[in-house]
Amino acid sequence: MIRLQSHVCGRFVDGVAAGRSFVDPVTGETLGMIDSTGVDCAGALDHARRVGGAALAALSFAERGALLGRIAEMLSASRDTWLDIARRNSGNTARDASIDVDGGLATLKYYARLAEKLGAAKRLIEPGSDRLAKGPFEARHVWSTRPGAAILINAFNFPAWGLWEKVAVALVAGMPVVAKPASGTAWLAEAMVRAVVEAGVLPDGALSLICGSAEGLLDAVEPFDCIAFTGSADTGRMIRSHPAVLAANPRLGIEADSVNVALLAPSATAEAQAFERLLEQALAAVSVKAGQLCTNIRRILVPSAMKDAFVEALASRIDGLVVGDPALPEVTVGPLVDEKQLRAAFAGLAALASETRTARGGGLPKTVVGADPAKGAFLAPTLLVADTGATLSAVHDVEVFGPVVTVIPYRDLDEAIGLAARGEGSLAASVYGDDAEEAGAIAARLAPYHGRVLTVDVEVGRSHTGHAIVMPQCVHGGPGRAGGGEELGGLRGLRFFMQRTAIQGSPTMLAALAADAVDATL
Amino acid sequence: MIRLQSHVCGRFVDGVAAGRSFVDPVTGETLGMIDSTGVDCAGALDHARRVGGAALAALSFAERGALLGRIAEMLSASRDTWLDIARRNSGNTARDASIDVDGGLATLKYYARLAEKLGAAKRLIEPGSDRLAKGPFEARHVWSTRPGAAILINAFNFPAWGLWEKVAVALVAGMPVVAKPASGTAWLAEAMVRAVVEAGVLPDGALSLICGSAEGLLDAVEPFDCIAFTGSADTGRMIRSHPAVLAANPRLGIEADSVNVALLAPSATAEAQAFERLLEQALAAVSVKAGQLCTNIRRILVPSAMKDAFVEALASRIDGLVVGDPALPEVTVGPLVDEKQLRAAFAGLAALASETRTARGGGLPKTVVGADPAKGAFLAPTLLVADTGATLSAVHDVEVFGPVVTVIPYRDLDEAIGLAARGEGSLAASVYGDDAEEAGAIAARLAPYHGRVLTVDVEVGRSHTGHAIVMPQCVHGGPGRAGGGEELGGLRGLRFFMQRTAIQGSPTMLAALAADAVDATL
Repeated sequence: MIRLQSHVCGRFVDGVAAGRSFVDPVTGETLGMIDSTGVDCAGALDHARRVGGAALAALSFAERGALLGRIAEMLSASRDTWLDIARRNSGNTARDASIDVDGGLATLKYYARLAEKLGAAKRLIEPGSDRLAKGPFEARHVWSTRPGAAILINAFNFPAWGLWEKVAVALVAGMPVVAKPASGTAWLAEAMVRAVVEAGVLPDGALSLICGSAEGLLDAVEPFDCIAFTGSADTGRMIRSHPAVLAANPRLGIEADSVNVALLAPSATAEAQAFERLLEQALAAVSVKAGQLCTNIRRILVPSAMKDAFVEALASRIDGLVVGDPALPEVTVGPLVDEKQLRAAFAGLAALASETRTARGGGLPKTVVGADPAKGAFLAPTLLVADTGATLSAVHDVEVFGPVVTVIPYRDLDEAIGLAARGEGSLAASVYGDDAEEAGAIAARLAPYHGRVLTVDVEVGRSHTGHAIVMPQCVHGGPGRAGGGEELGGLRGLRFFMQRTAIQGSPTMLAALAADAVDATL
Repeated sequence: MIRLQSHVCGRFVDGVAAGRSFVDPVTGETLGMIDSTGVDCAGALDHARRVGGAALAALSFAERGALLGRIAEMLSASRDTWLDIARRNSGNTARDASIDVDGGLATLKYYARLAEKLGAAKRLIEPGSDRLAKGPFEARHVWSTRPGAAILINAFNFPAWGLWEKVAVALVAGMPVVAKPASGTAWLAEAMVRAVVEAGVLPDGALSLICGSAEGLLDAVEPFDCIAFTGSADTGRMIRSHPAVLAANPRLGIEADSVNVALLAPSATAEAQAFERLLEQALAAVSVKAGQLCTNIRRILVPSAMKDAFVEALASRIDGLVVGDPALPEVTVGPLVDEKQLRAAFAGLAALASETRTARGGGLPKTVVGADPAKGAFLAPTLLVADTGATLSAVHDVEVFGPVVTVIPYRDLDEAIGLAARGEGSLAASVYGDDAEEAGAIAARLAPYHGRVLTVDVEVGRSHTGHAIVMPQCVHGGPGRAGGGEELGGLRGLRFFMQRTAIQGSPTMLAALAADAVDATL
């Protein structure tokens, strides 16, 4: 039986209580226990701020980038170990595990390169200065590392990518990290952090890990800390209203679930390339990671005239999916991460039932290959269909965190944009239309409600990266319900971990300041 | 007796209750009443979002800028009216009133010019694109107007500037405004908004005003709204923890009071220009607007060896200040804004008393010219002195919102930076040192804890704009206790009212999108 440890103040420690179990979602079998009772979270934060912060402050951006490069290299060498844990604890197929593990490694490497390009500086300066008076008095804006700890609280669905995409940016920005993986899948995060710590890649205090509850971390938060949270809107609200968070006013970034849309352009027919491209993404939405991606398509908006053709085509593809033990090569849909998530998905399906009809799935799968459906957390890939968008409520509001999509017909583009907006802020939207100009115009109208909009026209064809895949070059996060946070996006991601300051003074002083900084905008 | 009205859904309306009074702080005499009981805040927001939002969305940046230009022109024509209200309701000297009124007009004009330069576009696009795949698939980042209302809640100390600096940026960004001035000094805001509305400068729904309580606005907030608040950290916490705000997750910007520092460089002697420049700013801190600026110097850090010389010099200048009726030309220090603020200032002074000795002031002024000290809200310009920085607690924590500064000696620069950081995040710091390189190095160390750092070296001399003055070119706001918000800063200010979105697609689609937008980074 595995027992996960926390890494605080430079050493691995056990919780003092029994804790909770984490399981193999294929069998329901307990893999190990996780507990952070009695772990000194306040001490961990203090150690991170003082020891880790000082060590990182002594390094240039390029040197911090080199650390990320070494982490990526080191973790790549044990890639099979990570894929195996992802399969066993997250129920991942080989493809699912690669998105998590290789996605994390790619993001580390991307930020290693980006930081290297920033060179020997430790501070950013925005190009251009403003003259403020008739005499020699100007202003420039600089970005400095926030002098606190980065508290990175992650969701269960990406124990590897979710950890490293946040850690990479925080470390480049110069902030020491205290990470808190979701308990159900923390094994992979713990194993990776242990490997990095044991390899001695990072300075003492730069990377700590709490395996268990985040409560102790929130209680000890200070004004210059940053809390970056990914998870449910409900937990996000809990963090925002936590007394210690309200009192200290740390910077708070929330990336919450959202009811993302994919939109087939008004002009698209069943013969359009766009129709096929949307089908591919819709099929991915009900298979990849069993639909457990916060960016996943939840609502599919199609012109009314295309509804039946699209539902029929998607239903037929769904019939080709194979649910079962992700260890088997023929399996394309693994289980949800645990029984609790399965129950939550069923509750969500029940909420959607009154507004939709079920074209496929909607409950336990009829066939589960290589596993016992009564023991594993399997949910059938589910296609729901609504008759009209206007009267829907739950469909725009309830995110079923599993392989579930709802097709909604729309009359005209105005209605479609209005329906998309009913999500009250989403992480990602996608538009499928062969004509570039039409696709771009739709993207522009969707933009205010979203952190990212993918458009797929004939020129793009199949060469896009997918609706749900988060690329480190692009900002990740969305307004409103999606939390209002912003991660990644190349250098833009550094913003969260740094402070912008207007520096006013003489041209001579500003020139000296600029000599020591690197030009950038975030 | 004046009775202030709210402007909602395109008309001026009365509250239905008696409301509260606002006064002339020189005499304590009631000037009028303010009340928003029964005013339809939800309706006002809805009208702003639908009618005002649509009207502004139809305008280009340049056209929105032209609106600001007309507002500034129109308000400038009645400048004397505004200065008179500022004197009567805010107890402003001519200089104080100019900072508020002319500062507001200048900010409107500045943003009018900035918006004009953005031209015919309605959307911003960041320079550069990222290739995301081997095929024709790239990403660019655009900024669009948030499709909600801008709820602008202001502090009592700047009824004109505080209103217009927020309104200017929100309108350029394309967001309709519902403004809520602080009740004690709302008269000036109401009179200015009335003039703008009656002149028919703005489209219907673009500018609404609630004179009274903000509660109804908070109750009706929606996910795409923005709440920009300036005021106390306590009220900021109330807004952050408001149930409707927690539920809707609007964007929230808080600019709160802070315990700002001014720092005399370690190398400065009493003969240095820097010594004189700091004296000037310290004197301004205990006279201009009776110290009621959120950016005001509260703590003055001087090298231990310079403490006595500095205290003596400042005390002697304070002796030259004249407290009294701001209508009299010889008066340099007016009253606080009302009795409530006077009581709060006394409470703050009591908190500082155990840690400091009082070199000047500390209570009611001995002489008040042209007014009855028993009736007006006068506080003597106050100079407190601490023996050592290390043991202080209240001095780093309690902001006395009045003409009060504390001089604190420091041993070396490390200690000085540590003492500045004890403010837990401030709006503005200033550094006085003749040597440009020394001043710049200190500014760089102060930067992470501040939104703005002024440095005054010999080259700058007297040509700077002052510690407390907020310039529209520079970001305004600070981390931690200062609220974590960011306003102004030229185009940077638009960020708060807009949504950044990664748009992924074909080069052709992105080119079409870019043709319709203007290059900018925020």
